[in-house]
Amino acid sequence: MTNTVNDTIAAIATPPGIGGISVIRISGPNAWPAAMSLFKPDSDDVSLKSHRVCHGWIMNGEEPIDEVLLTRFEAPHSYTGEDVVEISGHGSPFLSHCILNLILSKNTRAAEPGEFTQRAFLNGKLDLSQAEAVADLIQAKTESARRVAAYQLEGRLSEQVKMIRDRLIQSCSLLELELDFGEEEVEFTSRRHLKSELSLIQQSLNKLLSSFERGKVCREGIRLVIAGRPNVGKSSLLNRMIEKERAIVTDIPGTTRDTIEEMLDIEGILFVITDTAGLREKSGRVEQEGIRRTYAALNSADLILWVVDASRPLQSEDKHLLKTIRKNKVPCICTVNKIDLKSDPDMTYMKQVFPDKNIIKISARTGQGMNVLIESLKGTALSGDIPHEGETLITRARHAEAVHSALDNLQKAEKSLHNHMSQEFIAMDIRGALDALGHITGQTTTDDILNRIFSEFCIGK
Amino acid sequence: MTNTVNDTIAAIATPPGIGGISVIRISGPNAWPAAMSLFKPDSDDVSLKSHRVCHGWIMNGEEPIDEVLLTRFEAPHSYTGEDVVEISGHGSPFLSHCILNLILSKNTRAAEPGEFTQRAFLNGKLDLSQAEAVADLIQAKTESARRVAAYQLEGRLSEQVKMIRDRLIQSCSLLELELDFGEEEVEFTSRRHLKSELSLIQQSLNKLLSSFERGKVCREGIRLVIAGRPNVGKSSLLNRMIEKERAIVTDIPGTTRDTIEEMLDIEGILFVITDTAGLREKSGRVEQEGIRRTYAALNSADLILWVVDASRPLQSEDKHLLKTIRKNKVPCICTVNKIDLKSDPDMTYMKQVFPDKNIIKISARTGQGMNVLIESLKGTALSGDIPHEGETLITRARHAEAVHSALDNLQKAEKSLHNHMSQEFIAMDIRGALDALGHITGQTTTDDILNRIFSEFCIGK
Repeated sequence: MTNTVNDTIAAIATPPGIGGISVIRISGPNAWPAAMSLFKPDSDDVSLKSHRVCHGWIMNGEEPIDEVLLTRFEAPHSYTGEDVVEISGHGSPFLSHCILNLILSKNTRAAEPGEFTQRAFLNGKLDLSQAEAVADLIQAKTESARRVAAYQLEGRLSEQVKMIRDRLIQSCSLLELELDFGEEEVEFTSRRHLKSELSLIQQSLNKLLSSFERGKVCREGIRLVIAGRPNVGKSSLLNRMIEKERAIVTDIPGTTRDTIEEMLDIEGILFVITDTAGLREKSGRVEQEGIRRTYAALNSADLILWVVDASRPLQSEDKHLLKTIRKNKVPCICTVNKIDLKSDPDMTYMKQVFPDKNIIKISARTGQGMNVLIESLKGTALSGDIPHEGETLITRARHAEAVHSALDNLQKAEKSLHNHMSQEFIAMDIRGALDALGHITGQTTTDDILNRIFSEFCIGK
Repeated sequence: MTNTVNDTIAAIATPPGIGGISVIRISGPNAWPAAMSLFKPDSDDVSLKSHRVCHGWIMNGEEPIDEVLLTRFEAPHSYTGEDVVEISGHGSPFLSHCILNLILSKNTRAAEPGEFTQRAFLNGKLDLSQAEAVADLIQAKTESARRVAAYQLEGRLSEQVKMIRDRLIQSCSLLELELDFGEEEVEFTSRRHLKSELSLIQQSLNKLLSSFERGKVCREGIRLVIAGRPNVGKSSLLNRMIEKERAIVTDIPGTTRDTIEEMLDIEGILFVITDTAGLREKSGRVEQEGIRRTYAALNSADLILWVVDASRPLQSEDKHLLKTIRKNKVPCICTVNKIDLKSDPDMTYMKQVFPDKNIIKISARTGQGMNVLIESLKGTALSGDIPHEGETLITRARHAEAVHSALDNLQKAEKSLHNHMSQEFIAMDIRGALDALGHITGQTTTDDILNRIFSEFCIGK
């Protein structure tokens, strides 16, 4: 992706397919002339002011192409910060491409994925974490994902990072000022105060870092695997969950769903559920493949439901499977199914292995215990509730790494401070922390990172 | 569909799926209050005037849902003629549904397919043929389909119908005026003049009616069937056409393509091509099914390519197939393939059956003759060019029927005139013609017809 922002770009901004409306977006210095060379407004005396919607036709010379609404957004008051024109026509893929092709013939070029948002970032309309939030918002499939993305787009993470950076800059400047007065051995900031300040900042950063686990769950969801020996009722359990909670139907063209995966919105959190049922239950040659898949599923799981049959004594096969499950140290809930057949099963073994709260008795057939199981899933996944109003979570590994690196630098600074090293070493470490944090909001970043982030976007955003 | 237009309706107007932007549309008296109860504009002093785009957030109480652009269209200056609000948010299906659900909780209801356009029609923003053109424009897959729909939306058909109706109304009024002066036997319009006027009008209507064949091809495309005995090169021919012309990839979610059909855009016209290859070429039980499908394809064809092999003498199987083809009296082009193997085949039989212009020698392997074939396909399909600037075509059976019925009535009127019948009979027939023509633009129509037309639309339009 090039960073020359002097050219003008255009793309269809709405999803592909048939609908009422399609929007084509143009951004750059030539947006307005390009649009006006194709647009015939209804009445000549309509003044095409910024942010005013105007009705008319897109024309190819004398040929009427489509009846549209056209809106001009004068720089810098636009999404990208450049001159932007949005053309809202009828929702036909053929028509949208006709109009786009006409625009592309007028000294504009096709936008690459995320290029509008990249320009918005380069022009200071939003910072990097907000740009990422735009992509997250578009991809959100559940309330928790939507919420963390909306908060981040609002600027909550940016503000918190900025606050921390401001404090670091303050400390750092004072240290650097001391350097200027090097001969005189003045201290503009007392070492005790600096120590406590750095320690407080580390506390804030640690708090932010600890939010990553929940943030990740919100943004990406949970990979839940249902495991158990044959005939303990794994499929019935999955079917009961689908019946009870909201199955997510992705209406994205070209999406094919893996037949052994179900996506469920369980009280606002995305659960991608793999049922390993039927895999080990086949005989002959299929069995090897089944075992391979079961192991693969268990290896990628964030949470495992180990299902056992209340109506029969625990078998060696049950215990063997549990051993495999526990190797990965993934959270696991022991689900004792079929309590409609035997309400008081022998729980001795389970109680040795699981804390009480992780043992849940259910009947997939009657639905008994399902509410408790759902609550437990949610609790284990998110250690509590979906993010509440006012909470800031970090949701991306990229952010977590930046905070990690900032913390490393601050620990070094603390150590230097402890060892009474000279200001310049402490200042250098603080600068390191500042740089690391700057990666989150994009104050400090490389083209590589930018390209990676924006290429994840869809075209037209 | 109800015709009470006092309630407020809302729908997602953009195609489903992931994209940069989604638009939610609200129409009705409650559109503005509903939107404002959810919208927090960036700055309080922005005056939310009609046609002004305003930036802000959709809020659910204190919870920020999505960053949006909101535009108000004050009645009657909107698509529907009612108060309309358009909310343009991020292009995520989950998010759009969140916003739509919030709106639906504010005393609005989900719009039915085509309901916005139906309201536009009921409020006189467009007539019925224009409303149909909206649906056609959205469904257009080729330039010819787009063009006839755009012309119709512009109002060309409406104008022509109006002109004819005005002339009929003029004649009719004069006749009815004579009735008022019944005793005095005055003639406000000379019978000779009336005769010539009705005859001229019939000419115009006949011209319009004769445009239906081409209009239908533009709107719906051509069902082309490639037929021939085994190994004459039918599949190679289809592949060569796909390579040469533009294959249409429908990016509509849920569309599955029939494996034996290909959609091609051949110089602006949609060709839905069925290759009967492989159907009769199987042995055993499959053969019956193959023959059944071949017959079905031939029966529904608008145009047939009968393919023969230049390198071998014509066989009885070739002639037998041609007999079947010609039963349906569908236009047929004789395609003599493999002229790379034998450039000068024996054409005696073909020349007996086909006019010269319908015999085309090609080589699917080398591409020789393909341009001539394509030209011939286009010519046969459309008897000429795709509609040119300024031409009005009728594209729907509904319109053709109306013109037919008008012509019937005018012939009756002419007969009455010829038989010197009294004014009231002639006037009645002219009224009949007026009524019939009124069906095209919707001046005279029934709820049934309206419902049928608008239920063909997508939701959000």
